[in-house]
Amino acid sequence: MASVAFLGLGVMGYPMAGHLKNKGGHDVTVYNRTTEKAQKWAAQHGGAFAPTPAEAAEGKDFVFACVGNDDDLREVTTGAKGAFSSMKKGAIFIDNTTASAEVARELDAAAKAGGFHFLDAPVSGGQAGAENGILTVMVGGEQDAFERARPVIDSFARMVGLMGPAGAGQLTKMINQICIAGLVQGLAEGIHFGKQAGLDIEKVVDVISKGAAGSWQMENRHKTMNAGKYDFGFAVDWMRKDLGICLEEADRNGAKLPVTALVDQFYKDVQGMGGKRWDTSSLLARLEK
Amino acid sequence: MASVAFLGLGVMGYPMAGHLKNKGGHDVTVYNRTTEKAQKWAAQHGGAFAPTPAEAAEGKDFVFACVGNDDDLREVTTGAKGAFSSMKKGAIFIDNTTASAEVARELDAAAKAGGFHFLDAPVSGGQAGAENGILTVMVGGEQDAFERARPVIDSFARMVGLMGPAGAGQLTKMINQICIAGLVQGLAEGIHFGKQAGLDIEKVVDVISKGAAGSWQMENRHKTMNAGKYDFGFAVDWMRKDLGICLEEADRNGAKLPVTALVDQFYKDVQGMGGKRWDTSSLLARLEK
Repeated sequence: MASVAFLGLGVMGYPMAGHLKNKGGHDVTVYNRTTEKAQKWAAQHGGAFAPTPAEAAEGKDFVFACVGNDDDLREVTTGAKGAFSSMKKGAIFIDNTTASAEVARELDAAAKAGGFHFLDAPVSGGQAGAENGILTVMVGGEQDAFERARPVIDSFARMVGLMGPAGAGQLTKMINQICIAGLVQGLAEGIHFGKQAGLDIEKVVDVISKGAAGSWQMENRHKTMNAGKYDFGFAVDWMRKDLGICLEEADRNGAKLPVTALVDQFYKDVQGMGGKRWDTSSLLARLEK
Repeated sequence: MASVAFLGLGVMGYPMAGHLKNKGGHDVTVYNRTTEKAQKWAAQHGGAFAPTPAEAAEGKDFVFACVGNDDDLREVTTGAKGAFSSMKKGAIFIDNTTASAEVARELDAAAKAGGFHFLDAPVSGGQAGAENGILTVMVGGEQDAFERARPVIDSFARMVGLMGPAGAGQLTKMINQICIAGLVQGLAEGIHFGKQAGLDIEKVVDVISKGAAGSWQMENRHKTMNAGKYDFGFAVDWMRKDLGICLEEADRNGAKLPVTALVDQFYKDVQGMGGKRWDTSSLLARLEK
């Protein structure tokens, strides 16, 4: 049992902090920008809440964060009243935000200077994965800190992997999103074509999903796509944030991502159709427009 | 045990005809444009060969074809010395060629006029699937003819589905190829990005392949892609033929396939790099160029 802080109680963070408390059995203090949600969490789970990241993090063995983007992350770490001002020597900061590799490296350096550790540890598995405590966690950082943090991370994860040095967790998450972008657009084009051709999509998927065209997305999303229901998973606004991070990093490392860039623009179209909160499979709605 | 003819002994047809003879136990007569290959097949499998499609098909219960394209298919069916001139009343012609839905409907009408049946039945699973007799077969046509042909088709198939009326088998195969086009490009961009970022691709795939980015292609092709080996599967020339069929049909049925059309052009680039016989995952080679 460790002393833990969790910063950021969004749709992901709220249940993740809950698993640290209930499944992991840890002593958890939470912080959230709007204090009401932190109070609600503390009342529900019997934990503590703090009014600032610095107060939440003080004296803790592990400090987790799951916030919106690079700027939010800088605010809760190196900002005024940020957690980095009060981290205990030797403690570990574990960032579950999907953010840039750059901010991960920057915070890793700041943590080293402060005598504690930083792990970038973005997750995949969505809200359902967070609620069920079965997320995949892609970690960047040093082996020793990873080994110490792993049993704690396990409270909300099904798969935890050390991918390389600081930033490698974020880079792995980017690959995940790049693969999904092309894959979902291909699937959307296939289903769109099948509907135009008058085929029974269920029957088609039944026959082709076990072969070379098969994917998690085909198995798990074809029914809602065929029904035109786009409220079942990761939202377009968040996907655009993630793809923006991928495309910026590609500018830096020289990778060419033509379809990823195109699909990012397609998601922009979906936003324009009122689909900011539709799920990523709504690329089909754009084709049908 | 039925009397069967098989027209076209390419990398797919040769082993498929073999399974009809050896696994199905049928009486098989083969035809091939270059007679030497038909003689070789007959010597190897103890079957018969005929010098023309008409002579091969005469009096047979089931006549299969697996040839290159629409024109080849017309030649062996309604062309001079084509099989349709000698088909027995009530017999069934099963076309395993990947062809247009248009030619399927045209040959279905011609077969009806001649008093026999036509099934369009393109396959997926590639050369390995043909050699191991575990193809997926997507069938268009009438229920009765399908039911009669199915046990014979089973000789080389793991999954056989009736997708709808004449042409529906071809349309289903098109959906399969459309899904693969976007998916493989997304995967190629992901692996390309990962290599540029200096990540261990094996480790990345190990972590992300079970989640929302996972696919048959990721599981089965990432190793050869990462190694830059593109001699492991369906060739670029054939994929371009198939995507051409998809794009033409989409022009007819009004489906919009922006990424499929783009990936078709990417494969054109790969052909220009000398990759006509490379496999479809060579989209990665184009990104790395």
